[in-house]
Amino acid sequence: MTTTRARPALPLTDLAACCSPPPGRVLDPAEADRLAGVLKALAEPNRLRLVSMIAANAVGGATCVCDLIEPLGLSQPTVSHHLKVLTDAGLLTREQRGKWAYFSLIPGALAAVAAAITPAGVPE
Amino acid sequence: MTTTRARPALPLTDLAACCSPPPGRVLDPAEADRLAGVLKALAEPNRLRLVSMIAANAVGGATCVCDLIEPLGLSQPTVSHHLKVLTDAGLLTREQRGKWAYFSLIPGALAAVAAAITPAGVPE
Repeated sequence: MTTTRARPALPLTDLAACCSPPPGRVLDPAEADRLAGVLKALAEPNRLRLVSMIAANAVGGATCVCDLIEPLGLSQPTVSHHLKVLTDAGLLTREQRGKWAYFSLIPGALAAVAAAITPAGVPE
Repeated sequence: MTTTRARPALPLTDLAACCSPPPGRVLDPAEADRLAGVLKALAEPNRLRLVSMIAANAVGGATCVCDLIEPLGLSQPTVSHHLKVLTDAGLLTREQRGKWAYFSLIPGALAAVAAAITPAGVPE
């Protein structure tokens, strides 16, 4: 079981819609709720490492779960659980190929989250 | 009390150091742990709204906690708790002025988090 919200995968279009607020605009409760759900999925060290591993492998295509177990030093069920949380959050796609599942980043999904947490018009 | 990590505020320089990995580089466990701590602080709808309110007010300078209570519809202790979590995570600064505390975004802190979760070299 997962402790994150049991809701359908976040459509990228919905996330993108919340990610380009005009400068100075305050997030409304629905936008904040949606964004918090995605950030909760990311806010776990092993899940962040999984995302970076899948990103590092992106030029080679999708990444087999079988190649993610040894580098993390976790059991396969634990790795699969973390990958499910990231998939449910709308950050990864999953494709079954015979015995193994393969995972890819959804193009633009992480960039949309990054844009959503960076307030427009704030001096850096 | 807070449920987030009881550790000193994250120095921005440390966060920035974890935020420009070469393309394709996998986060090491220490980097992932640090980034997850900041994301956990952000991954709460009211805290995301507080950040956006303080960002929206940035041109006017620091924001008084007294101006954040009514828009959120939460009690002052609850708002103060959320602001403490964000401050402890290294995202806000706090300045006491008489009765009230005033909060500002730490310049570059949110941008550093955004850069850290956006894998370099991944096609969008």
